[in-house]
Amino acid sequence: MLRGIDPILSPELLRILRAMGHGDEIVIADANFPGEASAREFVRLDGIDATRVLKAVLSVMPLDSFVDDPAITMQMVDDPDGIPPVVAEFQAVINKIADNPAEIRPLERFAFYDRAREAFAVIQTGERRFYGNVILKKGVLPPEQG
Amino acid sequence: MLRGIDPILSPELLRILRAMGHGDEIVIADANFPGEASAREFVRLDGIDATRVLKAVLSVMPLDSFVDDPAITMQMVDDPDGIPPVVAEFQAVINKIADNPAEIRPLERFAFYDRAREAFAVIQTGERRFYGNVILKKGVLPPEQG
Amino acid sequence: MLRGIDPILSPELLRILRAMGHGDEIVIADANFPGEASAREFVRLDGIDATRVLKAVLSVMPLDSFVDDPAITMQMVDDPDGIPPVVAEFQAVINKIADNPAEIRPLERFAFYDRAREAFAVIQTGERRFYGNVILKKGVLPPEQG
Amino acid sequence: MLRGIDPILSPELLRILRAMGHGDEIVIADANFPGEASAREFVRLDGIDATRVLKAVLSVMPLDSFVDDPAITMQMVDDPDGIPPVVAEFQAVINKIADNPAEIRPLERFAFYDRAREAFAVIQTGERRFYGNVILKKGVLPPEQG
Amino acid sequence: MLRGIDPILSPELLRILRAMGHGDEIVIADANFPGEASAREFVRLDGIDATRVLKAVLSVMPLDSFVDDPAITMQMVDDPDGIPPVVAEFQAVINKIADNPAEIRPLERFAFYDRAREAFAVIQTGERRFYGNVILKKGVLPPEQG
Amino acid sequence: MLRGIDPILSPELLRILRAMGHGDEIVIADANFPGEASAREFVRLDGIDATRVLKAVLSVMPLDSFVDDPAITMQMVDDPDGIPPVVAEFQAVINKIADNPAEIRPLERFAFYDRAREAFAVIQTGERRFYGNVILKKGVLPPEQG
Amino acid sequence: MLRGIDPILSPELLRILRAMGHGDEIVIADANFPGEASAREFVRLDGIDATRVLKAVLSVMPLDSFVDDPAITMQMVDDPDGIPPVVAEFQAVINKIADNPAEIRPLERFAFYDRAREAFAVIQTGERRFYGNVILKKGVLPPEQG
Amino acid sequence: MLRGIDPILSPELLRILRAMGHGDEIVIADANFPGEASAREFVRLDGIDATRVLKAVLSVMPLDSFVDDPAITMQMVDDPDGIPPVVAEFQAVINKIADNPAEIRPLERFAFYDRAREAFAVIQTGERRFYGNVILKKGVLPPEQG
Amino acid sequence: MLRGIDPILSPELLRILRAMGHGDEIVIADANFPGEASAREFVRLDGIDATRVLKAVLSVMPLDSFVDDPAITMQMVDDPDGIPPVVAEFQAVINKIADNPAEIRPLERFAFYDRAREAFAVIQTGERRFYGNVILKKGVLPPEQG
Amino acid sequence: MLRGIDPILSPELLRILRAMGHGDEIVIADANFPGEASAREFVRLDGIDATRVLKAVLSVMPLDSFVDDPAITMQMVDDPDGIPPVVAEFQAVINKIADNPAEIRPLERFAFYDRAREAFAVIQTGERRFYGNVILKKGVLPPEQG
Repeated sequence: MLRGIDPILSPELLRILRAMGHGDEIVIADANFPGEASAREFVRLDGIDATRVLKAVLSVMPLDSFVDDPAITMQMVDDPDGIPPVVAEFQAVINKIADNPAEIRPLERFAFYDRAREAFAVIQTGERRFYGNVILKKGVLPPEQG
Repeated sequence: MLRGIDPILSPELLRILRAMGHGDEIVIADANFPGEASAREFVRLDGIDATRVLKAVLSVMPLDSFVDDPAITMQMVDDPDGIPPVVAEFQAVINKIADNPAEIRPLERFAFYDRAREAFAVIQTGERRFYGNVILKKGVLPPEQG
Repeated sequence: MLRGIDPILSPELLRILRAMGHGDEIVIADANFPGEASAREFVRLDGIDATRVLKAVLSVMPLDSFVDDPAITMQMVDDPDGIPPVVAEFQAVINKIADNPAEIRPLERFAFYDRAREAFAVIQTGERRFYGNVILKKGVLPPEQG
Repeated sequence: MLRGIDPILSPELLRILRAMGHGDEIVIADANFPGEASAREFVRLDGIDATRVLKAVLSVMPLDSFVDDPAITMQMVDDPDGIPPVVAEFQAVINKIADNPAEIRPLERFAFYDRAREAFAVIQTGERRFYGNVILKKGVLPPEQG
Repeated sequence: MLRGIDPILSPELLRILRAMGHGDEIVIADANFPGEASAREFVRLDGIDATRVLKAVLSVMPLDSFVDDPAITMQMVDDPDGIPPVVAEFQAVINKIADNPAEIRPLERFAFYDRAREAFAVIQTGERRFYGNVILKKGVLPPEQG
Repeated sequence: MLRGIDPILSPELLRILRAMGHGDEIVIADANFPGEASAREFVRLDGIDATRVLKAVLSVMPLDSFVDDPAITMQMVDDPDGIPPVVAEFQAVINKIADNPAEIRPLERFAFYDRAREAFAVIQTGERRFYGNVILKKGVLPPEQG
Repeated sequence: MLRGIDPILSPELLRILRAMGHGDEIVIADANFPGEASAREFVRLDGIDATRVLKAVLSVMPLDSFVDDPAITMQMVDDPDGIPPVVAEFQAVINKIADNPAEIRPLERFAFYDRAREAFAVIQTGERRFYGNVILKKGVLPPEQG
Repeated sequence: MLRGIDPILSPELLRILRAMGHGDEIVIADANFPGEASAREFVRLDGIDATRVLKAVLSVMPLDSFVDDPAITMQMVDDPDGIPPVVAEFQAVINKIADNPAEIRPLERFAFYDRAREAFAVIQTGERRFYGNVILKKGVLPPEQG
Repeated sequence: MLRGIDPILSPELLRILRAMGHGDEIVIADANFPGEASAREFVRLDGIDATRVLKAVLSVMPLDSFVDDPAITMQMVDDPDGIPPVVAEFQAVINKIADNPAEIRPLERFAFYDRAREAFAVIQTGERRFYGNVILKKGVLPPEQG
Repeated sequence: MLRGIDPILSPELLRILRAMGHGDEIVIADANFPGEASAREFVRLDGIDATRVLKAVLSVMPLDSFVDDPAITMQMVDDPDGIPPVVAEFQAVINKIADNPAEIRPLERFAFYDRAREAFAVIQTGERRFYGNVILKKGVLPPEQG
């Protein structure tokens, strides 16, 4: 463990978050997400909820403020305009912890899968609730900030 | 880069510091140190002084408080009781930044090399001053701390 | 996830538990344990308590009944006869879940480290309590059992 | 071996089944199936019938209930509407063991080969009967189930 | 599959048996045998009895006739002079199939483990009966044969 | 060496022949054939004639009886209807040894190269005669055969 | 360190610069640049400004004189004709140190990313100023020089 | 070193030349040639002239006599019909040493780069003269020779 | 194939012979020799007699003239002073082809195995005659020779 | 090639020389030296004399001034006090080019081999003269030098 760094950020996950650059994306995926076959980098956080992982990731990773959709979730198949409870929790975490809070945008299910495949990395969590997935785009730290 | 984490801590270095456990040691080595041939993990920080690297490492890594010698430097060959200026700077950094400041202990040159070979990792810095090497032992974070 | 199998048993951990044979040992280690440098197989379960992991492991792995000490913990340095709370919890889990419950035996700290290094695998958990480590020896399933 | 888990599920096969996500597919192939050259993951169960393997796989893997064709076999070349005896046995196993039993759907021979190549994994069994191949799509475990 | 070759001899197993030279040894191990951690080459035949595997191996591998003990089993811990039923079956298979039948010799349990570790390869079978392990030493094919 | 198996079938070649499935192809190539750069699996039998290798391969590998052209050679550039002596020898070997003898079909030179590149494996022999190449398609062993 | 060679040129960076040929390109990237996921060769110089790295690279690498644009920077998104201060510094370094000084040419942002992906290597520096990226094309050393 | 074989033919280069088949091509490149990034096989002969390397290669490798252009050089950009001195030397070496001497054909610069990328291997020499590159196509050794 | 080089010298074997230095040893082993498990480099020449291989090796490799025993064979177990026919053939080949012919020396069987394990490489031939093994020590080419 | 750096210093050799630290040793070996089997890092400079390589190495690598024997050659077997011509040339090169010229010390032949095996790297040159080997110990660059 390290001082001042959330202990669920494992060695590989810290390496990945630090290695990502401006515009690179990371997927926080639920326990049923089919990520292992196609992810470029893949880490597991078995037994941990997606919201808990989101808190840890946003505690160190800047969220992109250059685009309108730095946080993306999967649209519900049967209710395109609905907001699943887990997504509502994601929004609350972002509002509270992100350096640049943004409104989560939904993406059609298969478009979401395609975008996840292009991501820098996928974190498979233990989240059991359906639709418990979110894609985050990394931002920058301006020169005057540390 | 990551929020609140010193930007000279590279992806591999963050991974290593996070992966180390209680009692594992890391070497911050000067630019002439013969580390690449025998180190178990090896990272470079070319062009950066050893004191600057020490500050970054101690900003996240707890220093062991279970032993008397969590910070070790190389004894000067010609002046066993002397303290090179770079070591004096090391002590100042430790006093200011370490969670458990400790007095640096010198170790005979070849004993220092032997101990460095057993370390978890070696960081080769750009430090040009002779004797600009220090071995640190990682401590623990108690349950109530985060 | 799989039907009837504890979801914190990750793909790699299931593979390891299944590959172990009679007498092979696995270490459930706390968050400060220095395991990554020397373990033969190494898996992480960041953020999960050691007792929770012990439950999951014993739900599928038989405990050896051919020896007197199939479960070993680290003796407290300052109180060799004491039983830390986390070890008391380990004993309760074993009593409840193991196919062959056995009394936990303490082992002197450095002897414990040596034995851990010889284990088939080390699981690094998120256990924050000190002494939250236990070594388990795998048993056999008799022919008539399935 | 592990408690309560079918012993023909080998270490690698357990790892694969656990790593698959919602919608990933696995092929249980007969002894003549040309799978080794193109499979993404490949495991062998020499000497074991395909029906026996199907029982073991379905004892732990949920079958997808979101699609109409979670189980697919190869259409007979000379009798597109015929059902080979081994496929009838597959249907009986699915009816008895699957969490979400479904009617097996036949697929034209070369379309079957193409789909098998895209699967997460291929298990080559010792099945000697022709048409002894089946593709299964993994389902999800709902939050309230363990 | 190949003409005239037992179909449970998998690709890797055929490669290993062919690559072994005069005096090299192979272990046919039961389902509880702790072989995976230390074997130099390791193949699995899950779900297949050890006697069935012995038949297949001896159908192609010559047994050494230069030594007195080309076939070795593990001595029973509690009954050093006893012959477990599975070993009696091993002897019957050797008598019937080996090119140079020989009397099986028992070896003390830990000496057996040590010798197994030095073997060219270990085959882990699905044999559930205890003591279902045998070490075979490969012989030669004389010039006029083969 | 193994009992009853042609000794020029090396460990890797036996592994490959056993791993091939129904419809997979293998190339027996002459000493000038440009195979090493593009073959998926590649084995050498330096100093051995292609006809000798063909005998060994067909002694264990079934030839496909589901297609009209399970054996293909390269058409002579200057005499498309001619049959080089080495190809006549190939036909004699097939007639004598194959389980399902078939008439060799010629293929235009560059089409032959393209097909060879898609094969499961290439065996480079020591055959010095031009046009000493043949592609074989593996067949099946029916359930009742073994 | 080596005599007469800038000490921030690390072992890997020296190897890369020496291995590049005529027309190969290298990217000196700022600390936010998303390079690690797609670069063919990737080296880090954490904590070092891009201008400092440019000096070191040009002290040994010839700049191409066969093309008009051997040095390329990223056009500012909001001010296509503007020259960021860091680019002005790049130009000054080139004018002073390059063997064949050339005028820096700007390239549209996404075209710059595409070109960077095709480069021989990417050096990620610690440059914090935005637009602190430059692509250099390697030149030749004429026969009489060197 | 080996008897009767030019000592500048290194272990890897001998392996490559021997592994090449009929029609495979090898590039002898000058010291500025950008070959390392894209070559399929790559060997260096630093400090050796291209003509010296050509002598060594042709002393063992047959040149193709089935095509008109078994030796190709790069057309001069400013003088398409000109013959650089180094190419004249190449022609003299071929005339003297090749088993099947042929007239060198020039190829437009970028077509030459494209063809070099498809070659079996690239040898980077120490040749300092511009246009000191040549592509050779390997021939065959007829049955009666060799 | 290459001009003037014995075609049974395969790409890997040529690489090995060229890479060996003064005093390095190579083993030409018979078909029963147990070499694959322990050899540092290992090549096969299935189907080729050991004497044929010896001719090829000595056609390019100098034999050491600095020691008395540059060629060593295995002493017959039952007749320490006897000379097996294959060894007599080895001697004839050496007398005829070696640059520095030497008398073959016998070595006790297990000492021979130990020495073989330390060799630079082992060539497994198709030699069927017992005692068809020979160890050769590589010599030097003096400066004036080529 | 790079500006101001000897062009026979290849990419790998530059990387090695830069990576070596204070006290690490490098061997410049003649063409008969048996280095490939045991060297930790190994590079070839076929066709180049050892003296030419020595010049290139010393043009960038500091020679150790902390010990009496930073340059070691092999003692002649028959004339322990003699100095072979190639060693005399080595001394002249050192006197002219080294930053810290030192007198070459001879070492008994087998002690030389043992020391070479422990070196950081071996460079195999094309040197044909016997005793054309030298071991160099790397020195340091003091802070004020660059």
